[in-house]
Amino acid sequence: MGSLDANPAAAYAAFAADVEPFRPLDADDVRSYLHKAVDFVYDYYKSVESLPVLPGVEPGYLLRLLQSAPPSSSAPFDIAMKELREAVVPGMTHWASPNFFAFFPATNSAAAIAGELIASAMNTVGFTWQAAPAATELEVLALDWLAQLLGLPESFMNRTVAGGRGTGGGVILGTTSEAMLVTLVAARDAALRRSGSNGVAGITRLTVYAADQTHSTFFKACRLAGFDPANIRSIPTGAETNYGLDPARLLEAMQADADAGLVPTYVCATVGTTSSNAVDPVGAVADVAARFAAWVHVDAAYAGSACICPEFRHHLDGVERVDSISMSPHKWLMTCLDCTCLYVRDTHRLTGSLETNPEYLKNHASDSGEVTDLKDMQVGVGRRFRGLKLWMVMRTYGVAKLQEHIRSDVAMAKVFEDLVRGDDRFEVVVPRNFALVCFRIRAGAGAAAVTEEDADEANRELMERLNKTGKAYLAHTVVGDRFVLRFAVGSSLQEEHHVRSAWELIKKTTTEMMN
Amino acid sequence: MGSLDANPAAAYAAFAADVEPFRPLDADDVRSYLHKAVDFVYDYYKSVESLPVLPGVEPGYLLRLLQSAPPSSSAPFDIAMKELREAVVPGMTHWASPNFFAFFPATNSAAAIAGELIASAMNTVGFTWQAAPAATELEVLALDWLAQLLGLPESFMNRTVAGGRGTGGGVILGTTSEAMLVTLVAARDAALRRSGSNGVAGITRLTVYAADQTHSTFFKACRLAGFDPANIRSIPTGAETNYGLDPARLLEAMQADADAGLVPTYVCATVGTTSSNAVDPVGAVADVAARFAAWVHVDAAYAGSACICPEFRHHLDGVERVDSISMSPHKWLMTCLDCTCLYVRDTHRLTGSLETNPEYLKNHASDSGEVTDLKDMQVGVGRRFRGLKLWMVMRTYGVAKLQEHIRSDVAMAKVFEDLVRGDDRFEVVVPRNFALVCFRIRAGAGAAAVTEEDADEANRELMERLNKTGKAYLAHTVVGDRFVLRFAVGSSLQEEHHVRSAWELIKKTTTEMMN
Repeated sequence: MGSLDANPAAAYAAFAADVEPFRPLDADDVRSYLHKAVDFVYDYYKSVESLPVLPGVEPGYLLRLLQSAPPSSSAPFDIAMKELREAVVPGMTHWASPNFFAFFPATNSAAAIAGELIASAMNTVGFTWQAAPAATELEVLALDWLAQLLGLPESFMNRTVAGGRGTGGGVILGTTSEAMLVTLVAARDAALRRSGSNGVAGITRLTVYAADQTHSTFFKACRLAGFDPANIRSIPTGAETNYGLDPARLLEAMQADADAGLVPTYVCATVGTTSSNAVDPVGAVADVAARFAAWVHVDAAYAGSACICPEFRHHLDGVERVDSISMSPHKWLMTCLDCTCLYVRDTHRLTGSLETNPEYLKNHASDSGEVTDLKDMQVGVGRRFRGLKLWMVMRTYGVAKLQEHIRSDVAMAKVFEDLVRGDDRFEVVVPRNFALVCFRIRAGAGAAAVTEEDADEANRELMERLNKTGKAYLAHTVVGDRFVLRFAVGSSLQEEHHVRSAWELIKKTTTEMMN
Repeated sequence: MGSLDANPAAAYAAFAADVEPFRPLDADDVRSYLHKAVDFVYDYYKSVESLPVLPGVEPGYLLRLLQSAPPSSSAPFDIAMKELREAVVPGMTHWASPNFFAFFPATNSAAAIAGELIASAMNTVGFTWQAAPAATELEVLALDWLAQLLGLPESFMNRTVAGGRGTGGGVILGTTSEAMLVTLVAARDAALRRSGSNGVAGITRLTVYAADQTHSTFFKACRLAGFDPANIRSIPTGAETNYGLDPARLLEAMQADADAGLVPTYVCATVGTTSSNAVDPVGAVADVAARFAAWVHVDAAYAGSACICPEFRHHLDGVERVDSISMSPHKWLMTCLDCTCLYVRDTHRLTGSLETNPEYLKNHASDSGEVTDLKDMQVGVGRRFRGLKLWMVMRTYGVAKLQEHIRSDVAMAKVFEDLVRGDDRFEVVVPRNFALVCFRIRAGAGAAAVTEEDADEANRELMERLNKTGKAYLAHTVVGDRFVLRFAVGSSLQEEHHVRSAWELIKKTTTEMMN
């Protein structure tokens, strides 16, 4: 009878009687909502370790918990926060959990999250320099800093060491897939011009190459760019190269195509494949591709971050001879999603294919040719201020801490690898290059795993049992036709004891299974 | 001599003597950094009105203020915040300023920023349902809510009203350009199959269509997808249709191509063009395209948000007969970048072209066919938890407030329009459809603007003078060969007095110029 409970609509009306105009960005409201969000984040990081990494929810669970129609009237922000805590969080796969060992970790840091928050609040759309001078320049600066960390040659930098504008440069994109797509398009257009094609008629003759271990998104990007599926060459790899691309096989494939009148256009080399962290030999691939004037792109999405440490930098040897390289700080450089850095050696080859110049974006700065308009190096026009978080990470932690972070993850992976090697029921399937350990119950490990096929089945069951505990989340792959478990170390809250606990769980579960 | 000042490296060492392991996500640090960021945001919103909207910086200014190499050692977060305040902010174009009238506003809200913050902290990568069940389902739910707000037919929804899985559905992408690209690729592949092309050989026969007022990013997306530049038809528009697409002209162009043995493949209709907010007639375009089985996409990036109000919904009439529609809550629905909602009527037509199935992403849920794996509706694999902020906006503000927000912006634009019409030195160039007013100093307005060409020059000078004051930022366009000023109302901190002040500034500057 007029009580709050009896009149929920009134209880939920956040804005008193609609007499006040609606002010969605009122500074006091923003501060109040953000303080609630910060409290949530604090509690989340404090408790995430105890939450099941992989939730036990069924498809459609959330649609049954939340209302199916948008509310007509406003509600205090606390209502959304309550539903977040009670309905959403229990159905999350917790990538931030220290017990997350699947895929690659999405590493993160206080500086990155704070930078992203500020970027969201400023909400700058930096398509041209004029639309966001500082955002454009900070992105360019952050990219050049990272290029220095990676030991990239000056030809990939926006500014030369002498301070002038370089011929190369970078851009921050959302994903590696976008980096592949835009460079594929630039290479495609160059090859069409080179081969005297009238329009796109010659596209049926263009061929692209990558090792069979290359991420599937590369083959998808090729199809998006209009390459003929029949002209996408997946070069077989094997244990003899640890599943890295064999330059001799690449040469053979490119030469055969050239001999057949086709136009070898693009080669994608991966440093640290998703499946098993295989490394394609960058320099040797570049040398082969150079014979055919094909574009070489290096996908170092995950392992590129490791190359900020001198002891890993050799994996990029020869990078000065490739056309482009991309790596994703949102994977292993503590910068929250999304942040993929693409560097190209000749910016004009990219902008030549991607430039637009509509009237409403024309301005003196763009006309002057003195500035970079980052819209011309990406798929879309609009773009967030992604450079801020990446700059804040490097500015705050500094090179030494970033290197320490990589080394600590690799050391933890080494601990796990040694534990696996110390148990003769298991084998490490490929040499560990970075912080990913590919291992499996080996054939002959027991009655439940006599043959390799038995072992495949045992590993599959082990993974499912582990993931169901909620105490660890591992993914799998297939290497050399064998089902293999991937143990990816590096979630930002992870410490050595989490790795050791996971191993204990693996051993215990295996013993239970084997009995 | 050992003092802090004399030893800045020691003063800047945030982590005591490196004895502690590096913990980039320590909950207390996260909270402390975020509180500093929240304070910054609060101060920013309180002061942004007084900052020059368009900064007076020269290209390269920031590179001269900040160090050109990444620091080797760590620094307190305060250092990054200080450089942000002192070096970055003065070079920002302030999209959040209430004096921002350029392009389209990037509207925002407390709920959206808080949602984005939480998403950044959870840092979920939702490529498959299993990798992020709640994130996937909340995105699907938010899209269905928005579909209801927009009055989209059930065929575009992920869930039917009866609760079953629909044949259509949506996905949140980064930009409209990506929405165009993925639908172009789906349409391309369907047309190739339909025309019996062997591989992509038939691509040279595929044609695409859009009004000449369509955003340039559409023509770029066509080129990215491999369409022949010679087959991209830009249909001329004129004042007689207020620069909307004339269906008769579209039919003529499509028929001529079909008669010539080409394959009309895709039509892009815009509801609210960037240049002048022209509206292509969706239903009539769909009817024409249906004769050729061509895909119709509706780009309602900006004006789609207005269609949550019944009085604007008629602009989408006929949408039930198109294949896809995209609109961007990051433009006008108070959801910070980036957030573009793409709806397709037949999900399988999209996933058929975009699906990948690498071993390391295989899982029971995907195999069951019961879940949506959102990676198969976008360019890339990785994806942020974009659904959270959009859901929080609708959950917190509710339909009525969202409608009020649109209506208030439109009412302010009407105020401005009336002011312009009341001054006979100016003309409103095209009818105002939403919250954008296209106007200009008219020919004959004075000695400095006798001819139309004089007026062009006067308007250009007016824009430059206005933008240099720092008190307003307007962009321009060309409509019917005339230089036109765009006054876009709706920045989230904007109130009527800002609009009136801008008009006073425009009048005063014009008077000064004319004398």
